[in-house]
Amino acid sequence: MSLNPEITFQTAPEQYRHWKLQIYGAVAKLSMDVQEDETLADGYKLKLNSYDLGVDIELADAVQRIRFEHPEVRAVVITSLKPRIFCAGANIYMLGSSSHAFKVNFCKFTNETRCAIEDDSKRSGRRYIAALNGTASGGGYELAIACDEIYLVDDGNSAVSLPEVPLLGVLPGTGGLTRLVDKRKVRRDRADVFSTLAEGLKGKRAKEWGLIDDYFPTSKFQESVDARVKKIVEAESPSVSGIKLTPLQVESNDNSRNYRYVKLQLHREQRYADLTIHGPQGPQPATPEEIQELGAAYWPLQAYRELDDALLHMRVNEPLIGLVCVRTEGDVENVLAVDDTLAVNRDHWLVREIVLHMARVLRRLDLTAKSFFAIVEPGSCFAGNLLELLLACDRSYMLKDSETGEASLAVSELNAGALPMSNGLTRLQSRYLAEPDKLEEVLGDRKRFDTDEAEKLGLVTFAPDDLDWEDEIRLAIEERTSLSPDALTGMEASLRFAGPETMDTKIYGRLTAWQNWIFQSANAVGEKGALTN
Amino acid sequence: MSLNPEITFQTAPEQYRHWKLQIYGAVAKLSMDVQEDETLADGYKLKLNSYDLGVDIELADAVQRIRFEHPEVRAVVITSLKPRIFCAGANIYMLGSSSHAFKVNFCKFTNETRCAIEDDSKRSGRRYIAALNGTASGGGYELAIACDEIYLVDDGNSAVSLPEVPLLGVLPGTGGLTRLVDKRKVRRDRADVFSTLAEGLKGKRAKEWGLIDDYFPTSKFQESVDARVKKIVEAESPSVSGIKLTPLQVESNDNSRNYRYVKLQLHREQRYADLTIHGPQGPQPATPEEIQELGAAYWPLQAYRELDDALLHMRVNEPLIGLVCVRTEGDVENVLAVDDTLAVNRDHWLVREIVLHMARVLRRLDLTAKSFFAIVEPGSCFAGNLLELLLACDRSYMLKDSETGEASLAVSELNAGALPMSNGLTRLQSRYLAEPDKLEEVLGDRKRFDTDEAEKLGLVTFAPDDLDWEDEIRLAIEERTSLSPDALTGMEASLRFAGPETMDTKIYGRLTAWQNWIFQSANAVGEKGALTN
Repeated sequence: MSLNPEITFQTAPEQYRHWKLQIYGAVAKLSMDVQEDETLADGYKLKLNSYDLGVDIELADAVQRIRFEHPEVRAVVITSLKPRIFCAGANIYMLGSSSHAFKVNFCKFTNETRCAIEDDSKRSGRRYIAALNGTASGGGYELAIACDEIYLVDDGNSAVSLPEVPLLGVLPGTGGLTRLVDKRKVRRDRADVFSTLAEGLKGKRAKEWGLIDDYFPTSKFQESVDARVKKIVEAESPSVSGIKLTPLQVESNDNSRNYRYVKLQLHREQRYADLTIHGPQGPQPATPEEIQELGAAYWPLQAYRELDDALLHMRVNEPLIGLVCVRTEGDVENVLAVDDTLAVNRDHWLVREIVLHMARVLRRLDLTAKSFFAIVEPGSCFAGNLLELLLACDRSYMLKDSETGEASLAVSELNAGALPMSNGLTRLQSRYLAEPDKLEEVLGDRKRFDTDEAEKLGLVTFAPDDLDWEDEIRLAIEERTSLSPDALTGMEASLRFAGPETMDTKIYGRLTAWQNWIFQSANAVGEKGALTN
Repeated sequence: MSLNPEITFQTAPEQYRHWKLQIYGAVAKLSMDVQEDETLADGYKLKLNSYDLGVDIELADAVQRIRFEHPEVRAVVITSLKPRIFCAGANIYMLGSSSHAFKVNFCKFTNETRCAIEDDSKRSGRRYIAALNGTASGGGYELAIACDEIYLVDDGNSAVSLPEVPLLGVLPGTGGLTRLVDKRKVRRDRADVFSTLAEGLKGKRAKEWGLIDDYFPTSKFQESVDARVKKIVEAESPSVSGIKLTPLQVESNDNSRNYRYVKLQLHREQRYADLTIHGPQGPQPATPEEIQELGAAYWPLQAYRELDDALLHMRVNEPLIGLVCVRTEGDVENVLAVDDTLAVNRDHWLVREIVLHMARVLRRLDLTAKSFFAIVEPGSCFAGNLLELLLACDRSYMLKDSETGEASLAVSELNAGALPMSNGLTRLQSRYLAEPDKLEEVLGDRKRFDTDEAEKLGLVTFAPDDLDWEDEIRLAIEERTSLSPDALTGMEASLRFAGPETMDTKIYGRLTAWQNWIFQSANAVGEKGALTN
C-alpha cells in the first residue's frame, strides 16, 4: 500500500459520497448507495454496494452525528438505495491490493464502527434496524448483525450470507462469526453450515435459524419495516435539539500534526511519535445549558475528537511509527473541574454522549496496535479522564524529585466506571486485579498523588529522578522500537486485556487474531489465493 | 517437516529419556534432565534443558501417571537435574526447522500439558511446586507458572524470563502472557516490562512483581522447598493405591489405525478420516472395587485413552486430513449403564480421575484444528459420554426413516456437568445458549431421542432419509474438504466457543491465534527472522 494519498477520517453529511442520511423526526434513515468509482485508492470498483475504508468512514461519521446532532432520533433504519442488493461487504479487490497492515487497520476500523452502533444502542437506547431490501453478504450481513433487528425482503432471491470461508478462504472477521454465536446465539452447528454456504439463506430458513428477525414480501416490505419503526418511536420522545459537530482544524506538515488541544510530533527515523494532549484552559461551562451553548468547542468533546483523529491518522497513515509517547500539559485542577461537571450532569443527554465518546476514544487507544508509553513530568495533567490515558499505556515513566517542580496524578469520579475498557472493567480495576485494596485506596478520599505515592500505589511503572530521566526515556524508546512490531502487537493484545472477556474483546482478540493469521495464509494471499486473483 | 518418522505419544517412566519420576510417599519428584541428542528429529540439540515435543510427551505422560498410578501423591515437585538451569524453554532450532503446522501442534500439545497440570491441581487437589534450581526462561518459566507455587534459587545468577519477544520476535505462546496477567495477576505494565526484558528478573524483584512466590539462597534452597512440601503433605493423606496404565495396543497399516475400541480409517486422497468409537460390550464392573480391579481395561478409560492417542496421531502425523467423520457402534444401554456407574461412584478417586480424563480428551477434540462431522446411523451409540462426541462436532447428520432400524441419541447424568468444555460450559449448555428451555427438556426425564425428536430438539443438524443419505454425506465431505483449512480453523475456533471465556480459552483462542500470525511474520520466519537464523 502506498503511503499517499493520506487518508482523512473527517467528513460530514454534505460531503458523503456513499451514504444518504435523512432525519424524519425521531427516525433516521441511513441509505447506502456506494458510488463505484469513488474509491480511496486506484485499482478497484465498488460494485454492488461493496465498501472500502472511505465508505465506512462515512458510516462512522453518520452514527456519530446522529448521536450529537440529532439526539431526538430514537430509531435508525439502515438500508440500501440499490435494487435487490443491500451490501456485498468489503471489496475483495481492495483487500487483494492492500498491504497486510492496511487490511488489519481497515478491519479494525469497520469493527469499531459496528461496535459504535451497538454502543449507541446499549448505552443511549437508540434502536438500529437493518432493512435488507436485497442480499446482504459478507460484511453486508456483518453490518446487519451489528443492528438490533434485521428484516429481509422475501423476493425469491435475496439472502443473507457469510461467503468468506467458502469463496475467499478468509473469515467473516468484522465480528461476523462472533456475533452469530454470541449475540444472536445461533446454534453452533447451524452457524457452521451457514458460514460455509456461499449462497447463504433466504427468508424462511434465515428466520428459523435466527439469522434475521423477520422477512416480508417485496410488496409489503416497506410498510412492514415502517410499522415496526413506528412502534419503536411511538413512545413520547423528549424534545431535545443537538449540537453541530464542526470540522476539526488541523495544521500539519511533514513531521507534525497540530490540533487545538492535541499535538503530534513524528520521529519516523526513530519509529516513535510524541502525542501531547493539552488540558482545558480558562473558564469552563458549569451547566448542561452552557455546555450545549459551547457545543463542539467544549474541551472534553473537542480534545477527544482530536485525539481520535490523531490515533486514526497514525494507524493508517503512519504504519512505521511503532511507539507513541503520551504526554499531557495543563492544570490538574482544571481537568478535575471538568470531570466534576461531567459527573454531576451525566444524566443530561449531551453530557452522556460526551462521556460515551471519551470512552470510545480511549477504547480506540486500547485497541491500537502500537506501543504506548506515558511520560509524566512537572506541568503535566494526568488527572481524571486524562489519567485514563496513562492507565491505557503499556507502561509509564514519572519524573521524581525534579528541580523544576513536582508532577502529580489525580483521580476523579470518571475513573470509577464511566470510561470502561472493552472487557467491561475500568482501567483501574484492570490495573489492580491482584490488589483490590489499592483500588479502594486510589478511589478513596485522597485524590492527588505525587511521584512517591504514585510509585508506591503502582500507578506508574518507573520513577527515575532528574539525573537518570533523559537517559532512561531515551533508552526505553530505543529498546522498544528495536523489537518486532508484530510480536509487540500480539503481546500487547494479550497483556492489555486481563480478566473477563466480552463480545467486543472476543472480536478484537480472538476473531481478529485468527483473521490476521489467515490474511497471511497461502489460500488467501498466496499465488493462487482468493484475494490475489 | 517430513511426515516420517511417525511421532508416537505413548511412553512410560521406564522409557523416559528426559525426565525422572520419583515417588516418595505423598510426594512426587519430577526432574528434568534433557538429553541433548535424544531429539525427535535431526538438526538440533536440546541444550540447557530446552525441549522438543518428545520431552513434553514424557511430561504429559508423567502427570497422567501420577494421577492414575500414584493417587497417594499430594504434592508434585518439578525441578531440574542440570546445574544452574531449570529449563530454557522450547528449542528454537527445532522451531526454526519445523513447518508452521508442526509448530502450532507442538504449542497446542505443550499448552494442553500445562492445562492438565492445572486440571490436576484444581480438580484433584494435587499441589504442583516449581522448584527452580536455576534459570527458567521462555517455555521454562511458562511451565513454572502452570504450577501452583514457584520458588527460585537466589544464586546471584538465576532468573525467570520470557525472552521470546525481545530475542525471537515471537510470543511466549504456551500460556505465558495470559497466565502472567490472568493467573498471577501481574500488573500489566510490569508484565510489559518483564516480557520485553531478555535477561528477566532475579529473586527479589521477581517476587516483588509476583512472578515467583519466594526465593532462597543456594545453601537453603533444597531445605526450604522441602519444608514447604512437607507442610502441604502433612495433612493425613488417604491410603489409596493406583492402577497401572498399561500400554495401548494398536494395529496400524498405511490407511488404518485400529485400537480395541477406536478405529481410524484414513482417506488421504479425499482429505478425510473415519473415526469410529465402539461402546462397551459385555458385563461391566458396578463398584469402585471392580473398576479398580479391571484398571486400564475398563471401557471408559481404555476407549478414551485410545481416542486421545488417535486424535494426537492425526494432529501431528496426518496433517493432510482436514475432516474427521465421527461414528459410534454399540448398544446405547451399555453406554448409559457405564455412565450410571461413573455418576454414582464419582466421589471415588479412580472414578473421578476416569471422568476427568474423559473430559480432557473431549476438550482435546474441541481444540483439534480439523473439522468434525458426527454421522449417526442405526447401530450407533451416541449416548451419554459418547453424545459429547456428537455435540463436540461442528455438525451432525442423523439417518431418518431407515429400513435398517432406527438410530437414537440418549442423555445421561454425565451430560449435565461432568465433562465441561474449556469455557466452563457443558456442550449442551453451549448448544442451547439461545434456548435454555430445550436444555431442560433434553436433560429432563425423557432420556432417549429418535431422529425426529433429535431433529426437533436441535440435537442434530441434518436428518436425511435413506434416499438422500449417502449422497448428502458424500457431498458434505467433498464440500468441506474443498475449503481452505486455515479459514476453517479460524472459523471453528470462533464458532466452537460461544459464551464465556476462561483462562484456558484465552490461551487457545486469543494467545494462540496471535502466535499463529506471528509464526508467519517476517521477523520470525523471514529470511532474517529470529527463528530462521
